[in-house]
Amino acid sequence: MNRGFLIVGNKAVTKPFSLNDLAGSAGRMDILCRFIAQALFISHGIRKNVEVYLLLLGEPEPPKAIKIVGKEVKTMAPDERNIAGLIRKALKIECNKNWKRSTSGIYISKKNLKELLDELTNRYKIVYLKETGKDIRNFVKQIDKDCLFILGDHLGLSEEQERIVKDYASEVISVSPISLQADQCVVIVHYELDRSTIF
Amino acid sequence: MNRGFLIVGNKAVTKPFSLNDLAGSAGRMDILCRFIAQALFISHGIRKNVEVYLLLLGEPEPPKAIKIVGKEVKTMAPDERNIAGLIRKALKIECNKNWKRSTSGIYISKKNLKELLDELTNRYKIVYLKETGKDIRNFVKQIDKDCLFILGDHLGLSEEQERIVKDYASEVISVSPISLQADQCVVIVHYELDRSTIF
Repeated sequence: MNRGFLIVGNKAVTKPFSLNDLAGSAGRMDILCRFIAQALFISHGIRKNVEVYLLLLGEPEPPKAIKIVGKEVKTMAPDERNIAGLIRKALKIECNKNWKRSTSGIYISKKNLKELLDELTNRYKIVYLKETGKDIRNFVKQIDKDCLFILGDHLGLSEEQERIVKDYASEVISVSPISLQADQCVVIVHYELDRSTIF
Repeated sequence: MNRGFLIVGNKAVTKPFSLNDLAGSAGRMDILCRFIAQALFISHGIRKNVEVYLLLLGEPEPPKAIKIVGKEVKTMAPDERNIAGLIRKALKIECNKNWKRSTSGIYISKKNLKELLDELTNRYKIVYLKETGKDIRNFVKQIDKDCLFILGDHLGLSEEQERIVKDYASEVISVSPISLQADQCVVIVHYELDRSTIF
């Protein structure tokens, strides 16, 4: 089954940025890079059944959405700097509401959260990951459709963003008894899904 | 309970390195930085009950060991570049067989694998993480002592390293049905331990 992950980067900049300051002037782009790495990479390989979506809401031209398609990605390493370089390249493209290809497997558009979810709800069951949700360990036993998991960055989702997500989400799921970083949540989702489908 | 993590960096350099080439000339220092990040950080905080050990075996002065003590760490962010900067600072210190403090919570010495394990076996049950081991989900139910988990980098452990580790390890444990990166294994160990002790 396919797996999708979407993160909202509330401060992530929408123009090319310095690779030497991902956590600062790039608006916590480091969080998004780690999110991508944990969604796509296993040891010595990439998960072909994964799509990653980033919603960038930082200055100067929000919103911008980036899509990364695991089965198309060719030149990506799991370190933050390498992934950031690919995002920076995508941000150099003049974009509109349609997906435009930047490098292999990486696309960019001007979609906002609602437009992204309108597109994704046809192909995925939308799942909102939040600490107060139901235990993922029970949830994975009942999955009958490809799921897209939505997470916030270090700031979480705003009330308005959460309202939109809840309009589309059929489930609110928790991955841990303690509050974790977004990329750690992705590792746990993969782990529980791997166990339920491979073991 | 306390938790320890040790990674063997077979190519990780033992001198100060460029922060702009962690995955290249620094000998996959990016892997070690992500390992530290996933061992120490949760959302908006550091796990105080964690110690991380790095064994650096790259040129020009192997071995060097670095120890990071969660409850003492003051100035660290989870991005690779920030953590790499702290490791680089430690590598500027002239070191011997005793731990020398570099910055808050970060120590360096000239210990090799056997000397590290001789020191750690007094305080921890030594657990070797390997794909062919027993399922972690059963293991966490029986833990009665602080555990130190040992992992290889992208090259894994050599036969000689594995022989030494197995002399000290009371268990060989697997964290996933598929082969994962070292930092992903750390996330899963924390997750299973969190569930078994907090839920």
